[in-house]
Amino acid sequence: MSSAANASSKDKVTVLTAEELLAHWQGHRRLTRRMIEAFPEDKLFSFSVGGMRPFSELAMEFIKMAAPIARGVATGKWASLDESPSPDTKAALLTLWDQATEEINAVWPTIPVHRFGEVDKAFGQWENTGINTILYAIDNETHHRGQGYVYLRALGIEPPAFYDRS
Amino acid sequence: MSSAANASSKDKVTVLTAEELLAHWQGHRRLTRRMIEAFPEDKLFSFSVGGMRPFSELAMEFIKMAAPIARGVATGKWASLDESPSPDTKAALLTLWDQATEEINAVWPTIPVHRFGEVDKAFGQWENTGINTILYAIDNETHHRGQGYVYLRALGIEPPAFYDRS
Repeated sequence: MSSAANASSKDKVTVLTAEELLAHWQGHRRLTRRMIEAFPEDKLFSFSVGGMRPFSELAMEFIKMAAPIARGVATGKWASLDESPSPDTKAALLTLWDQATEEINAVWPTIPVHRFGEVDKAFGQWENTGINTILYAIDNETHHRGQGYVYLRALGIEPPAFYDRS
Repeated sequence: MSSAANASSKDKVTVLTAEELLAHWQGHRRLTRRMIEAFPEDKLFSFSVGGMRPFSELAMEFIKMAAPIARGVATGKWASLDESPSPDTKAALLTLWDQATEEINAVWPTIPVHRFGEVDKAFGQWENTGINTILYAIDNETHHRGQGYVYLRALGIEPPAFYDRS
C-alpha cells in the first residue's frame, strides 16, 4: 500500500478503542496508587516543594475527577467537584482510590458510543468532547504524579518505575 | 439504545483517530515548548530538585524520542537514541524542538494504518504496539514536564497554564 493511499484513508483510522483506553487509564491509575503507597504517612499529607500542594491533595483531585468523569461521559450528569470527602489517612485515601477503580470499570461499558465524540460541559464548566475530557483526566494525573516524583526524590525515596503499569 | 447493546458493540469503538492523536500530541508539545521558554537560560541547563536532571536534559529526552518514534512506527526503522546533539543554549534547543515538530507532522500521514496496532521493538529495545509506543512518548513528556513545573515553582517562576495547548 502506498503512502498516498494510506494518507487518504487516515482520517478514519482507529488508533485506540474504548477498551484500550480503559486499560491505558487503569494502568496509569495503578502507578499512581503505588505513588500514594510510597509516601510516608506524614509526608503524604504535608510535604511539598515550591509551595505546591502535598501529594494527598493531588491524589484527591484525581479521585474527584476520575469516576465522576466516567459517569458524566456515560450519562451527561455531572457531580459537583466539591462533594468529595477529605481523608486524613493513607488507608482512607487508598480505600477511596480503590472504590473509584471499581466504579470506573463498572461505568465504562455503559458509555454510549456517541458520547466519546460528543461535546459536553464537564462538571458544568469545561466544554469538550468525552474523549478529550477523559484524556485530560489522564494527562492531569500524569502531570501531577510527575510532581510527586520530585517530592519523593527530595525526600530521598526511590519512586516506583514510571514504565511499570502492571 | 440499551446499556447492554452498547456494551456488546464496545470492543470496536473508535475513541481516537490518527489525526486526533497527532493534534493531541502536538498540543502537549506546544505546552512543553512554552516550558522550555519559561526557564531562565542558566537554570534550564543547571537547576534541579532532589538530584534529578535539569529541564534541558528532559527536553532533549523528549526530542530524542518524538520524531524517531513517528519515523519508527511509520517505517519499522529505529534511530539510535545516542545519535542526538547536545545543545547548550535555549535557542539551539528550541530550534531542535521546532525541527522535531515539523518532522512529526511530515511523517505522520505516511504511517501505514496497520502499524498503530502492530508490535515492534522501539529503538530495538522496547516491544510494544505502535500506538502504545506513541502514547508512552506523550506520557513520558507529560510526566517529566510535571517535574519541570516543580523546578519553576521552586525558582519562584509561574509556569504556563497546564490546560492551554494552543
